[in-house]
Order: sequence, then structure tokens, then C-alpha cells
Amino acid sequence: MATAVVEPATKKAKTPYAHTREAFLKVYNTLRDEVVDDALLKGQPADAQAWMREHGPRTNPPANQTARTSKLSAPSPPLAPPPMLDYNVPGGKLNRGMAVYDVIAAIKGKDNLSLDEVFKANALGWCIELLQAFFLVADDIMDGSITRRGQPCWYKVPKVGMIACNDYILLECALYRVLRLHFADHGSYAPLLDLFHEVTYQTAHGQLLDLTTAPPAGAIDLARFTKDAYMRIITYKTAFYTFWLPVACGLLLAGEARPEALDLARGICVDIGQYFQIQDDYLDCYGDPSVIGKVGTDIEDAKCCWMVCTALEEASDEQKEVIKANYGLKDPAAVARVKAVYGELGMAARFEEYEAASYSRLSKLIEEQDLLPAGVFTNLLAKIYKRKK
Amino acid sequence: MATAVVEPATKKAKTPYAHTREAFLKVYNTLRDEVVDDALLKGQPADAQAWMREHGPRTNPPANQTARTSKLSAPSPPLAPPPMLDYNVPGGKLNRGMAVYDVIAAIKGKDNLSLDEVFKANALGWCIELLQAFFLVADDIMDGSITRRGQPCWYKVPKVGMIACNDYILLECALYRVLRLHFADHGSYAPLLDLFHEVTYQTAHGQLLDLTTAPPAGAIDLARFTKDAYMRIITYKTAFYTFWLPVACGLLLAGEARPEALDLARGICVDIGQYFQIQDDYLDCYGDPSVIGKVGTDIEDAKCCWMVCTALEEASDEQKEVIKANYGLKDPAAVARVKAVYGELGMAARFEEYEAASYSRLSKLIEEQDLLPAGVFTNLLAKIYKRKK
Repeated sequence: MATAVVEPATKKAKTPYAHTREAFLKVYNTLRDEVVDDALLKGQPADAQAWMREHGPRTNPPANQTARTSKLSAPSPPLAPPPMLDYNVPGGKLNRGMAVYDVIAAIKGKDNLSLDEVFKANALGWCIELLQAFFLVADDIMDGSITRRGQPCWYKVPKVGMIACNDYILLECALYRVLRLHFADHGSYAPLLDLFHEVTYQTAHGQLLDLTTAPPAGAIDLARFTKDAYMRIITYKTAFYTFWLPVACGLLLAGEARPEALDLARGICVDIGQYFQIQDDYLDCYGDPSVIGKVGTDIEDAKCCWMVCTALEEASDEQKEVIKANYGLKDPAAVARVKAVYGELGMAARFEEYEAASYSRLSKLIEEQDLLPAGVFTNLLAKIYKRKK
Repeated sequence: MATAVVEPATKKAKTPYAHTREAFLKVYNTLRDEVVDDALLKGQPADAQAWMREHGPRTNPPANQTARTSKLSAPSPPLAPPPMLDYNVPGGKLNRGMAVYDVIAAIKGKDNLSLDEVFKANALGWCIELLQAFFLVADDIMDGSITRRGQPCWYKVPKVGMIACNDYILLECALYRVLRLHFADHGSYAPLLDLFHEVTYQTAHGQLLDLTTAPPAGAIDLARFTKDAYMRIITYKTAFYTFWLPVACGLLLAGEARPEALDLARGICVDIGQYFQIQDDYLDCYGDPSVIGKVGTDIEDAKCCWMVCTALEEASDEQKEVIKANYGLKDPAAVARVKAVYGELGMAARFEEYEAASYSRLSKLIEEQDLLPAGVFTNLLAKIYKRKK
């Protein structure tokens, strides 16, 4: 997704939580402080909450740390990794979270939104970012990843380690605390809870499909890399939470409850989400590293991606043998041989064809329906169409 | 907790889901099949759901397994660990899950319960067991445990490994699927969702307190083992989900919504839960291994338990030095030296004193309130008072 559109300064006075990254981050600070000072954990001595201030964001040194050390042994250093929420939640591109505002603005008109609605849209946006953080911390443990968003993965941080398995539970808990604190009296409270549960289930299902499709180390099995398997993985693992979740949050916040409208939106969002992930796979291979900010390694990592699934559908037996012999090897020459087959098969042109067809199909779907304002979807689509990063 | 009371056979005809372990397990089978055949995952080709049938309970071999293998390479063996839900959910003592029925029976009278109410009580009971499974799978990973309930921990099962990090997410998802399938139209649906979220948060908080109180390997720090720290850990980690959760489920199912009644019940249940965990710690040291089914190792494992926290409060400097020098060593002689100090301090008598005081305090609390039938609590208390296992 491209970076979010910055509101003109004149709008800011009217909507202080308007759609800038800075305003969105300000809402994060509010929500984070609420979670850290959670009434649920009160009624215990002050130091019972120290973990949240230490393990959560750290503002002041825990007040009675010294009082708790006894005569028995020297005080041991407190567990003091970086603040858990700050480390894991706000560091991404925030496109998913910020999209909720776009949706409700498309439905109600930007100028008709109350401050409360804008705040709530951003709070739901942070619930999405919390869900994403929850999944990323877990995924990194399962994948044995080293870095994430330019810093060590949370479980790799000294003194965190496997405590990260509990921290991702806490990230998910924080999501439902925010929902309860700000939406308990909202007419869509139960539907919002159902939505987050459903998308969590779908995403975990996608994660399992991905984990069980990935070949065990050293045993590439291209038979598993079918387009069907691929589409299922990206639909569940990415499309629901990346596009359907923000749109559904915006619709429910706006009071939209017609099942036919929600079904329509779900279908279009999943379609956009598939297109988004396929772009991602294309850019991994053909994107400009200086623009996308990283060098793609899908071939080396033996990823079940759009490029290889599509290539395997079209390749001759000989070309398949080349892919089979070279896919998943951490060797630039092997990668080059796979890319040469992609070249022979005209994969770049195939992608452009797919992109044009997707865009025109999606535009038609959006135009031909009259249940929801087209802007709900066209904003999303415009941000990713022909993206270079 | 003692094993559940078996209903007389004459009652069975009237309440087929009555309070026997067998009837309770029958409800599990129903719920498990519903989760496995989840409509949320339909609309995809049949094999998209194979993971649930394989990774979930395995009844038939996946229908089109062979159809999916291609010319490219020999079919690789499917991921086929034991069924994930069956492996992790129903194998415990089931006391927590079965307690929901006791609570609603105490409120409405056993003979006044409809079949639907009995089924729903048991379904909520399984939600509690799913929550417990979710936490146990996670805890075992974090603790590096080897066995659980007489079988290898789930993450230790071949081909599972770190996929278990996603499986415990799926266990939690299954809980909310069951709630949605059977309670979406119930008047207490949102309060039930809030309840499970709240207890999850409290338990994860307790787990974090426990993880950050436990000394790093090789560095026992008894200064952390205070009674305050101990009480906080057991309250959050155990008491809420073991006693408050089943009681709250029963109350909400019965339509109880008075905040003062729920507050009263929460307080009593937390109190009972603390007593229960303190018994557990006592039995670990002084229980009969042939009765409790295991040999206690809290001393060897350097656990922050009631025995050591209480002993440290009462011990002389010399006795503290003995504890300090021997606690956490996997050496029978060291364990014996710690137990000798416990003996000098009269720990067994102290526990009996604590138990008598707890029972009389709790009985008084239960008797003196008139918001809820005493049976809601006395059933729970009777099952654990002076338990030997």
C-alpha cells in the first residue's frame, strides 16, 4: 500500500484524529496507557502492575522495587526488556489500521464524522494492528526468524525468549480490552467481537495451511505448490485480515448490518487481498530493491508463491526440472536459473496481464453494486494498483 | 477435586447430558465435530479442510489426498500427527468443565433444568476445558516440559514442534466458535465473551508474573519468594480460571446479571481458588505419592510455592541459610535438608491451621450472604476440603 494521504491542515482543527500517521499514533498512546493502567489488574499492590510498566511501556522506574528486596540475597536485576507493546505494535506501515478511517469516511463523508467516530475508527484500527502484532510475534517464533521491521524479532530480544509465547497472548488480550473499553456500549459490540474472532480463526487457519504446505527442511516438494493451495493460503493467511477486517470494522462502526452488504464487501475485499499478495510475490522477484526496501528471497526460501505456482502450471517438463533442481537453494547461480525459466515463460508479462484483468474485474464489481459507496473499495484499490512497493 | 458425583441411573433418562464424565465427553464429541466441520472454512475445495480432519480429529483418510500429487515428484507423506483437538482437550480431570453444571443445578434445581440448559452448561464447560488446553500447550512450550497428562507434551509430538504455537491459537479459536454456535442468541452472549476474555487476560497476566518471578536457571533468588508475590501469582494464574470461570459461566447461563451477585461470587471463588492452590503445594510436599499419582518436585524445581514462602516468613536466619543453600537442587539430600527445616517450623501443622481457618472463613462468607444459593459454592468447597489428591 502507498503511504496514507495527509489531510490538509485546515481539516485538522475539525478532526484532530484525522487521517495522518501522527494523529493515528497519538491514539495509540492513549490506548496503550489505558491498557497498561488496566482496572482489571488493579486492587493489587502497586508493584503487581510493575510487569506492565516494565514489560509494557516503561515510563518511570517501578516505585517500590527496592522495598521488595530482602535480607536474604542481593537484589537481582529486574526483567527489563524493552516495553513489550511499544516494541511490537506501532512499528509497521499501519496501512491496515489507518484504513478503517477511510472506510467510514467513504460511507459518511469526511466532514460529517464526529470526533468520537474518528477516535473509534482509529481505536478499531489499533485493534487490527494489535491482531497483526499478535500474529507476527507468533509467526516469527514458528519460522525461526531473526529480524522484523528492522529490529530483532521479539522472541530474540535478550531476556524475552519463550516468554514471547505468553506475550502474544497478551497482545491479543489487549485487543479485546480496547474493544471492551471503547465499544462495550456500541450497538455493534457483539458483531465486532465475532468479527475479530472469525478473522483470527481464518488467519490461524491460513497459517496452518502455510506451515503444512511448506516443505520440511531439505525436502522441496513442488507437488504441493499448486495454484489452488496457494490461493487458499493467501486468502486465509492474508486477505481476510488485511482487507476484509478494516473494511468490516468501518462498516460495523457505521452501523451497517445488512448481511447482503457485508457479504458483498467480504467478497470484494478477499479479491483485493489476493491481488495484493500476488503483487507482493511479483515484487519480491521483479521489484526494485531500492524501492521496496529489501532484496526478495522467495526463491532461496522455497516459498509457495504466485511466481512459482504459475510457472509450474505453464512450464515444459524440462523447465520444471530446472525449477525442481534449483528452487530453494541459497545460491545466486541457482536463483538465476530459476529466474531464467521465469523469463522464458514471460512471467512479468503474465503478471501484468493478471493485474490488468484483476483491476478491471474489481472495478466492474465495485461499479455494478449499489449496496455500498464505491469509495469504500476504490480507496483501497487505488492505493495498491500498480504499486511499486 | 474429588471425582464428580455420578447421577443415579433413574435421573439419566430425564437428563441425558447429566453430570457424568461419560455424558460430558459425549458433548465434547458433538462440539468437536461441529468445529471440525466449521462453515467458516467451507466454500473451499474439500481438501482445504483436510488439515482439520488430519490435524484435527482423524476419522477417514483425506478423500482426495492422492489426486493432489502430481507428476513432478513422489507424493510426500501428509502431515499426520495425532488429532490436535482430541490430543489436547479431553484428557484432563475435567473438574473445571463439569462444575458449570453443578452451579446451574444449584441455582435452578437439578430437576428443573431443560435438556437445552444441561447441554449448554456442558458446552460452556468445554469452553473452559478448551481455554485450559490453550494455556497448557503454551505453558509446556515456555517451560520446556516433556510430558503432560501421561503423554508427551503436544509440541514434543513428532511433526508438531513449533506448529504448536499456532495450534494453541486454534484451540482458543475453537472456544469462541463453540460460544458463537451455541450462544449467539443467548441473552448473556456478550457477557460470556467478556468473561472469557477477562479470564484469559488474568491468566496470561498470572503466567507472566510466574515467568518473571521464577529465577533464571542456576540463580535462585529467594528474595522474590514473598507471600505477596506468591498470592498474586496463584490468584491470577489459577484461581480465576479454575473457580471463578465455571461459576461465572453457570451464573450467566442462569441469567444472573446483578453486579453485586457477580462481585460476591468472584470474591468467594478467588478465595476458594487460593485455598485450592495452597492445598496443591502442600500435597506436593506432604501428600501420598500413591494417592496423588506423582512424586512432588517443587523443592527440586525451585518453585515459588506456599511451603517455601511461608517457611521463609517464619524461619530464623540460620534456617533461611539452609533453605537458600539447598532449594532448587536436584539432590535428594538437599531436598531432605529443606524438608527438615519445614519440619522444624511445623509446616504441616501450619497448613492444617490455614486449612481450618480458610474453611471456616469461607463457610461464614457463604452462609452470611443471601444473594446466591449457598450450594453454588458449597459444592465446590466440599469437593476440595481436606482433599488428599
